[in-house]
Amino acid sequence: MEHDLNAKQTVCRIIDQSRDKLAQLTSEMVRFPSTFGQEEDIQQYIADRLEKMGAEVDFWYPDIEQMRKHPGFCSDRTDFSTSPNVCGVFKGSGDGKSLILNGHVDVVPPGNEDDWSDSPWSGKITQDRVWGRGSTDMKGGLACNFIALEAIWAAGLTLKGDILFQTVMDEECGGMGTLAQIVRGYRADGVLIPECMKNNVVIATIGSAWVRLTVPGRGALLSNAEAGASAIEKSAYIFNRLNEFERERTQRLAHPLLSHVKTPFKINVGTIKAGNWPSAVPDQSVMEIRYGMSPLQTVDEAKAEFEDYIDKISQGDPWLKDHRPQIEWLGCCWHPCSIDPNHPLVRLVADNHRDVTGEDAVVCGAAGGADNGSYARFLNIPAILYGPGEISVGHQANEYIEIDKMMDATKVIASTILDWCGYSSNP
Amino acid sequence: MEHDLNAKQTVCRIIDQSRDKLAQLTSEMVRFPSTFGQEEDIQQYIADRLEKMGAEVDFWYPDIEQMRKHPGFCSDRTDFSTSPNVCGVFKGSGDGKSLILNGHVDVVPPGNEDDWSDSPWSGKITQDRVWGRGSTDMKGGLACNFIALEAIWAAGLTLKGDILFQTVMDEECGGMGTLAQIVRGYRADGVLIPECMKNNVVIATIGSAWVRLTVPGRGALLSNAEAGASAIEKSAYIFNRLNEFERERTQRLAHPLLSHVKTPFKINVGTIKAGNWPSAVPDQSVMEIRYGMSPLQTVDEAKAEFEDYIDKISQGDPWLKDHRPQIEWLGCCWHPCSIDPNHPLVRLVADNHRDVTGEDAVVCGAAGGADNGSYARFLNIPAILYGPGEISVGHQANEYIEIDKMMDATKVIASTILDWCGYSSNP
Repeated sequence: MEHDLNAKQTVCRIIDQSRDKLAQLTSEMVRFPSTFGQEEDIQQYIADRLEKMGAEVDFWYPDIEQMRKHPGFCSDRTDFSTSPNVCGVFKGSGDGKSLILNGHVDVVPPGNEDDWSDSPWSGKITQDRVWGRGSTDMKGGLACNFIALEAIWAAGLTLKGDILFQTVMDEECGGMGTLAQIVRGYRADGVLIPECMKNNVVIATIGSAWVRLTVPGRGALLSNAEAGASAIEKSAYIFNRLNEFERERTQRLAHPLLSHVKTPFKINVGTIKAGNWPSAVPDQSVMEIRYGMSPLQTVDEAKAEFEDYIDKISQGDPWLKDHRPQIEWLGCCWHPCSIDPNHPLVRLVADNHRDVTGEDAVVCGAAGGADNGSYARFLNIPAILYGPGEISVGHQANEYIEIDKMMDATKVIASTILDWCGYSSNP
Repeated sequence: MEHDLNAKQTVCRIIDQSRDKLAQLTSEMVRFPSTFGQEEDIQQYIADRLEKMGAEVDFWYPDIEQMRKHPGFCSDRTDFSTSPNVCGVFKGSGDGKSLILNGHVDVVPPGNEDDWSDSPWSGKITQDRVWGRGSTDMKGGLACNFIALEAIWAAGLTLKGDILFQTVMDEECGGMGTLAQIVRGYRADGVLIPECMKNNVVIATIGSAWVRLTVPGRGALLSNAEAGASAIEKSAYIFNRLNEFERERTQRLAHPLLSHVKTPFKINVGTIKAGNWPSAVPDQSVMEIRYGMSPLQTVDEAKAEFEDYIDKISQGDPWLKDHRPQIEWLGCCWHPCSIDPNHPLVRLVADNHRDVTGEDAVVCGAAGGADNGSYARFLNIPAILYGPGEISVGHQANEYIEIDKMMDATKVIASTILDWCGYSSNP
């Protein structure tokens, strides 16, 4: 135990001295405009850095045909020809637990650049923050992974378990980057993802999928309106009933780790388009919906429940019972998941958070999906989200990350790596 | 009276002999595909025929700048360069009441031609019907006007009052053709329009206008959905409240001549478009609505009532009260109107209908707008809709008109012309 404290203290001291390096690395990564399909340059940069750190680096362009065979494949992509994946393996000396450090390099588009007070790709460092698109979500977190590991090496420690340093594309568009890591065969005993979770220990996330509802009506001229059936009226009916469904599911599928969220499994009718002439009864309506799922259910269960509900409410309407809405599940799908709060990896992260910050860790869930779900669903590996920055700052103009929070996260990650993988001092 | 009966009998006998001519003329006019902006050829054909019948023919392309100055102008058109209007004036011998015979030459598009068992422009004559787009709405009625007048000439009668034989464009798109007749200065003591009204005497029609409601929301990511306001949710609220408004207006604005119509002043949400991403709270919704108006109100009153109602329901919603929907009245507008059922012209048409068909006329209103509203609103001239065919057949595939019904209408129109304008036998 004395030994542990000394090693962690040494590593944390090195991290304290790496503050500029941490900010600088974040800034450098922000300067890559790595939006959808533009991930090559940053992945090359990362692969080079991992190689210099001593990793065996796997840099590859996932084969879409191979990917399609996996049950988790859901994407509108036709190839990954400009979206490579990276996995740097640091082999341990043996007899330790292995850990995946995962982070995504893709970022959402900057939106209207006029809303930014500086270039979205500036990577500027001012006010103890690093600024720019992706700083919070999640190049800041990715930098923590790097500096944590580099500090361990600099302290002259050797890990017993393997570290798999994964940087993935496509997290913002469906998680095919992480799925590609799984398809590639990478496995470990646990996963840490420094997503922007305010340094909370997030061990439950909701699932979600997109679904398109095509609601049939019957067109008619207004002089003969009674002969028609308004697809907009039927959509309003469905909309109101989906609100009831959402309320009922909020109760029935409540998860203790999501009790702080008002509507965790939101059913969001995001788009609607119906009719083409003000003077005709609209004959079709199309709604696109983001459907949230509880960690208490699987994607398949949740989808079946949605389909059953549409069936039930259609039965209750004189028109819809004979003219069923068409249900199509679209591209993306995030898997709900949760980890036992008493799992050793959860306890380690929480304890190290308390030791580093002096405050009890908040162990909770989050009402959004991330790459952790795929590890839980397809490999049954516990994947914890723990990282600096907050979601309300990501995806916005003038995105930034606080360097102090990154420093805390880096120390917690480094300490957790030591505890989980085990280590020895270099001779 | 003896004299009247003899003249009418003679004219009706001539009409009986003109059955083929009536069908043929309808067929010829159907063969002109006179959709929006394609009215030149048929108008030239009609002008030639009117000239041969002895009319002083005015064939003109309305000047949009002059039209715009009229309070009744409401159209998205930028010109009438391929949409001429025609008025053929048959001067009476004097001391008689004048009559406008109005009919529109424009037709709605045929829609999907696969739904037609023959070409929409075939004008085929089979099964005692004339087939094709516009046969019912309203080239059949227009042919009745021609044959009625030609029979009067053939009977050697001279009318005392003037006949203004108007053929107009744009009825299907807002009624700018009839407004152009008004702007051109044409006036008369009464108007007959042989619209497809099943040979009912239609003396009240609803008004209608198009209105666009832009409903503001506030966009938000679903991880922070509480910060947003769904424009689709607000639209569903407005949709439901508009249904209540429709029910209340059906009661309050009930018109005795429209009591056979379930929802005469329909508020039809014909289109809706909102949101652009399933995973975001939609920040705007646009609905386009056809708003029906009672003959008990003017367009201005009805529009003010709609605006007040939107104001009232916005007050009742925590979001809308501070984020008002934007209201835009669009292009077209049809004026509601009604005529005293005891007006002499109404009695004449009804009596002649009874005499010709042996059945009492149905004197009623219709839940649709037509060109009659402009005469009522801007000239205070009684305009009656009386013509063969039915609205449920117009605007559909395989549109047709029954020749028997055209024959009846032609006799009623001819008899009414004689009664209204007065006549003398040629020396």
